[in-house]
Amino acid sequence: MRATLMYGAGDVRVENVPDSVLKHPTDALVRVTASCICGSDLHPYHSMQAADGPVRMGHELIGVVADVGSEVTTLSRGDLVVAPFAISDNTCEFCRENLHTSCSHPEANFWDGMPEEGGQSEAVRVPLADGTLVKLPVAPDSALVPSLLTLADVYGTGYHAAKMGGVTRGSRVTVIGDGAVGLLSVLSAQRLGAEQIVLMGRHRDRTDLGREFGATDVVAERGDEGVERVRELTGGHGSHVVLEAVGHMPAYQQALGVVRPGGVISRVGVPQYEEAPVGFASLFGRNIRLAGGPAPVRAYVEELMPAILDGTIEPGKVFDATTGLDGVPDGYRDMDRRTSLKVLVEP
Amino acid sequence: MRATLMYGAGDVRVENVPDSVLKHPTDALVRVTASCICGSDLHPYHSMQAADGPVRMGHELIGVVADVGSEVTTLSRGDLVVAPFAISDNTCEFCRENLHTSCSHPEANFWDGMPEEGGQSEAVRVPLADGTLVKLPVAPDSALVPSLLTLADVYGTGYHAAKMGGVTRGSRVTVIGDGAVGLLSVLSAQRLGAEQIVLMGRHRDRTDLGREFGATDVVAERGDEGVERVRELTGGHGSHVVLEAVGHMPAYQQALGVVRPGGVISRVGVPQYEEAPVGFASLFGRNIRLAGGPAPVRAYVEELMPAILDGTIEPGKVFDATTGLDGVPDGYRDMDRRTSLKVLVEP
Repeated sequence: MRATLMYGAGDVRVENVPDSVLKHPTDALVRVTASCICGSDLHPYHSMQAADGPVRMGHELIGVVADVGSEVTTLSRGDLVVAPFAISDNTCEFCRENLHTSCSHPEANFWDGMPEEGGQSEAVRVPLADGTLVKLPVAPDSALVPSLLTLADVYGTGYHAAKMGGVTRGSRVTVIGDGAVGLLSVLSAQRLGAEQIVLMGRHRDRTDLGREFGATDVVAERGDEGVERVRELTGGHGSHVVLEAVGHMPAYQQALGVVRPGGVISRVGVPQYEEAPVGFASLFGRNIRLAGGPAPVRAYVEELMPAILDGTIEPGKVFDATTGLDGVPDGYRDMDRRTSLKVLVEP
Repeated sequence: MRATLMYGAGDVRVENVPDSVLKHPTDALVRVTASCICGSDLHPYHSMQAADGPVRMGHELIGVVADVGSEVTTLSRGDLVVAPFAISDNTCEFCRENLHTSCSHPEANFWDGMPEEGGQSEAVRVPLADGTLVKLPVAPDSALVPSLLTLADVYGTGYHAAKMGGVTRGSRVTVIGDGAVGLLSVLSAQRLGAEQIVLMGRHRDRTDLGREFGATDVVAERGDEGVERVRELTGGHGSHVVLEAVGHMPAYQQALGVVRPGGVISRVGVPQYEEAPVGFASLFGRNIRLAGGPAPVRAYVEELMPAILDGTIEPGKVFDATTGLDGVPDGYRDMDRRTSLKVLVEP
């Protein structure tokens, strides 16, 4: 079968690999019908050492169940399913607390932690299939597929940002980043009733989509100038809630600049740093809270799906390009150059 | 009048200084009847550069109003009052949000930010007296004074740790630090209904008081051994809520070790670091939240005082020594050597 491998920074290839097969009785084999490239895939695209590769890529997918292990009870061949970016059993004490990304099952994992499976391919072995996969009530060629695919990561991740930031009716929110997760953080804040949503981003086509998703203000400036602008828009003190959907240190610093004393910075951009300012001069002195992490998107699927199915929202608008598997390397390049927002892959 | 000055690390002196006097019409002049030395006073006692001194010390006090400015409306000569460690107007938008430590009034400050006033002295000028001071319904020689004095900082700070950690009925909590704030974090967690309270501390007399305040378990070990012990006591995964009442980096690292995925580290020990681990390997990957800051103790006085007045609780048990002003330098030394837990000063 064909699959995407990253060999090192800037080096993405689509190659023939051994067919994925069932290994454990709790596995399902899924033929991928829709996958995509994630903003977080760009982190290794920028920095991966060749010695760490090659690794299989892709952690968001929709597909048709091709086979199931003997212990799989909820799925059958032919089911269309969506696979969150984390493998979880959906029954352990952490899953029951809606923290599927900390599932304590020995086979729990992230797709990105499985070097031999990946969504940007023709097929994938899904461990803990009953816990991980969610059946979709549409056909593989449904026009809803792009929006349903966002349940695998970016919409659930934006929603997690908003939930961990405590967004509720009347909240005043700043979103940092106009990538897919930033834009779906805007949508999530809007759905949760935020009164003001300031989107910090400098790509006009993206921030236009942000406005469509509910942004009330857009700030294109960055750094000190951007912070100043947000403060002007928020009565001088910044936002109670800041959703950080980038992961680089300048975004963290921007968050410190636009958060109101007593407020919260909710991070869902995967941090590309380990140490950061948290002392008296940054978080502590102003009682600013830090929240967020890898989103337990499995926990949100049932909550978020109905408004997609009934057409109320269309998070799939974050996809602005579609390719087959062979076009995946170009898709990475286009997303890296910001000529594509998010690339849908139809293997 | 006599007052305590710190000249540099290890160099505390009690000297004659100009009498404190009213300067603004919103000031009160307070004759101090009870003050104390704070664990946070030990930070400059360890590290203050002589070039930064001398500075007046003391940010917790009870005293009798000796005079009031023309615009003070709620206080009169002779009132016994308690002064929180932060000066605030109690009316600005942040004070109304119970974040008095971020009061936006131009005269808002911390006592520690006022080089010419301090509680470890015979008298003090209190700015924004109507906002800052709270009248006490007892006499200056009441046996309740030590407990009421804890409302100026350490009890309110421990309570803030517990509130920002989200402690509620049934919470499972670990408290790091057996100083006065750690012990009153235990008391606060107990009052808020915590089911398990693991106190990490290695001074037997202090942890015994911690047990009296509600600790269900005591862990004397530190570092990896202490983390291991707490994990054993918490079903292997650590506590949902960790209250960090120390402020040094090893305490932060200990907090990372004992906090459960999805849990919260609530800090009230003043951080003696600015940068700390917050990335995927520490906070982010496990969705651990960071909370806390300087406690808006003014916000908690009315809530916490009744149980002191009716004898239900006795947070003043953290005082294990009493001295006059001349004994203050020895009090610093004793607290630094851990031969005193907290020293009450009767000027």
